[in-house]
Amino acid sequence: MESYSIGVDLGGTNLRIAAYSHQAGLFDHVSMPTRLDAGRDAVVSDICQAIRHLLDRYSPNKSLAGIGIGSPGPIELPEGRLGHLPNFPGWDGFELRAAVGRTLGKPVIVEHDANLAALAECKLGKGKGLGLDSLCMLTLGTGVGGGIVVSGGIWDGMNGMAGEAGHITIWPDGHACGCGSHGCLEQYASAPAIRRMVKEAIAERGAPGLAAMEKVHPNFSSEDVFEIATAGDPDAMRIFEIVGRALGIGVGTLINTLNLPLYVLGGGLAKAWDLFSPSLFAELHHRSYVYRLTGGQVDEHGHKAATTHVEPAALGSDAGILGACLLPFTQAREA
Amino acid sequence: MESYSIGVDLGGTNLRIAAYSHQAGLFDHVSMPTRLDAGRDAVVSDICQAIRHLLDRYSPNKSLAGIGIGSPGPIELPEGRLGHLPNFPGWDGFELRAAVGRTLGKPVIVEHDANLAALAECKLGKGKGLGLDSLCMLTLGTGVGGGIVVSGGIWDGMNGMAGEAGHITIWPDGHACGCGSHGCLEQYASAPAIRRMVKEAIAERGAPGLAAMEKVHPNFSSEDVFEIATAGDPDAMRIFEIVGRALGIGVGTLINTLNLPLYVLGGGLAKAWDLFSPSLFAELHHRSYVYRLTGGQVDEHGHKAATTHVEPAALGSDAGILGACLLPFTQAREA
Repeated sequence: MESYSIGVDLGGTNLRIAAYSHQAGLFDHVSMPTRLDAGRDAVVSDICQAIRHLLDRYSPNKSLAGIGIGSPGPIELPEGRLGHLPNFPGWDGFELRAAVGRTLGKPVIVEHDANLAALAECKLGKGKGLGLDSLCMLTLGTGVGGGIVVSGGIWDGMNGMAGEAGHITIWPDGHACGCGSHGCLEQYASAPAIRRMVKEAIAERGAPGLAAMEKVHPNFSSEDVFEIATAGDPDAMRIFEIVGRALGIGVGTLINTLNLPLYVLGGGLAKAWDLFSPSLFAELHHRSYVYRLTGGQVDEHGHKAATTHVEPAALGSDAGILGACLLPFTQAREA
Repeated sequence: MESYSIGVDLGGTNLRIAAYSHQAGLFDHVSMPTRLDAGRDAVVSDICQAIRHLLDRYSPNKSLAGIGIGSPGPIELPEGRLGHLPNFPGWDGFELRAAVGRTLGKPVIVEHDANLAALAECKLGKGKGLGLDSLCMLTLGTGVGGGIVVSGGIWDGMNGMAGEAGHITIWPDGHACGCGSHGCLEQYASAPAIRRMVKEAIAERGAPGLAAMEKVHPNFSSEDVFEIATAGDPDAMRIFEIVGRALGIGVGTLINTLNLPLYVLGGGLAKAWDLFSPSLFAELHHRSYVYRLTGGQVDEHGHKAATTHVEPAALGSDAGILGACLLPFTQAREA
């Protein structure tokens, strides 16, 4: 009997649930709004109802490998106990794993959503493409999430908080971060950071192209900034140059610390790769002698060291739900 | 038959070689100057001769588990191929593992010396004391070395360059580093960094206590600065406060990235713990929400998360040679 898994991606906006089987080419997924206004129990009920529906559909012909759930962090693992999530009022300290497991009477694994995106990118995306089973992935979106996969397994650290690379300090006296620190990577390489930097640029130096955009679209998105940067607006381009610098400093620190073969940048902002990657690679060359030593070049002794790859993600917005589906088939690596 | 190992610590100044058996309480060690002036072959010959001497002494009654050699980095693993070591002229690209192994006709394992100090601190020092088998150790000396141990094994990364935490960027526009970057941790938390900061303090603001010290001891050491800071000189104290700030930013980044249970600071400078630790912990609280969440406190739900420990090392200058002796008994973890 073929085995399959069920994956859940619990997002602040959308709740996605899927049945998955690599062997069978199965990826049956639904998406619904996450009813945060209706409260925690309503959302858990939505999750369990959708899972039951998939169990009814597939368990007669396939064996269930397990149920994987991805959640925003901070989250303690393996318990699946949520910390303080600003967008999830009333969820502090909630034991998500136990609640869903108890309701369904089935074992459930919970993971940090950024770790699941990294797992999917490793098994089905750039990792697969390059034949590598270890990577660090940064997801650039509303925040900057991070996940580390080592030898095919998620590296959770001691209680699930490994890979919080969005909160690496880039400029110690930089912008205040929601985490309580200043100058975190997230303050320079996320969608809200781009909006803030646009406002700063307009206030500080006029930035006529950005000012015109803001006038037409007062609620402009990072996508709008991407478009006018692509069209050649110098102030918009400069913002993506800062994004690249911050990412280069952050990825340089990750390379010097982790010495993994692959670093992947995903999430909505990664589509601006062509705009930010020149300054990213300039910083990497400056910041990381490990990167320079593993850049894939042959040295004066005719020797070529193992190569460090830094690449845009291959998977799009399905990475999180695919990772949740892969989770029951993989082993976590704890510190 | 009891088993024993032979460890070698190849330093820029001293070469240390030991026979070790935990079971037998054996730690038979010699130290000699590293004859770098006499060239690479002379040093390798010294290493092999001292190893043969120990083999002759112990192999009749004990079985050899293996030979471990610690070397300064950069070094590619598992080949044990040296990169460019500024203090080792003529050693670039040298295959240390193969050279010693061929001469002795025995298998040899080579590791980065900072990783071996971390291994010893884990198995015989603070890790053992706290009952933890994973840690990250920073060795504060002429440079800042770093090593990561996960579940009792050294975490080498893809080719032995993991844990280069001395080259985490702290202040992106800070002092130039020998690695080619600017503002690396090593530029604020090593013995040469302290000497430089003393000269800067004298040049920038007089710093009468430091100026008097420099007048008496033109070749003053970081130890001298430590002494007058301990005696209460405000400019000397301020330098150790900067050391602590840099370490706090760096360790905060490591905690957010690795989520390990223990971070240990060793090396000669670690004796200034009382001087730099207040600013280190102030930065940690500011920089790392993972540290705050794992600080060992009970939260409002009566819940206590796994604890992150940040501690001075328990082992002294024997950490490197002890780690080399432990190496044949442990398994490396590659990325």
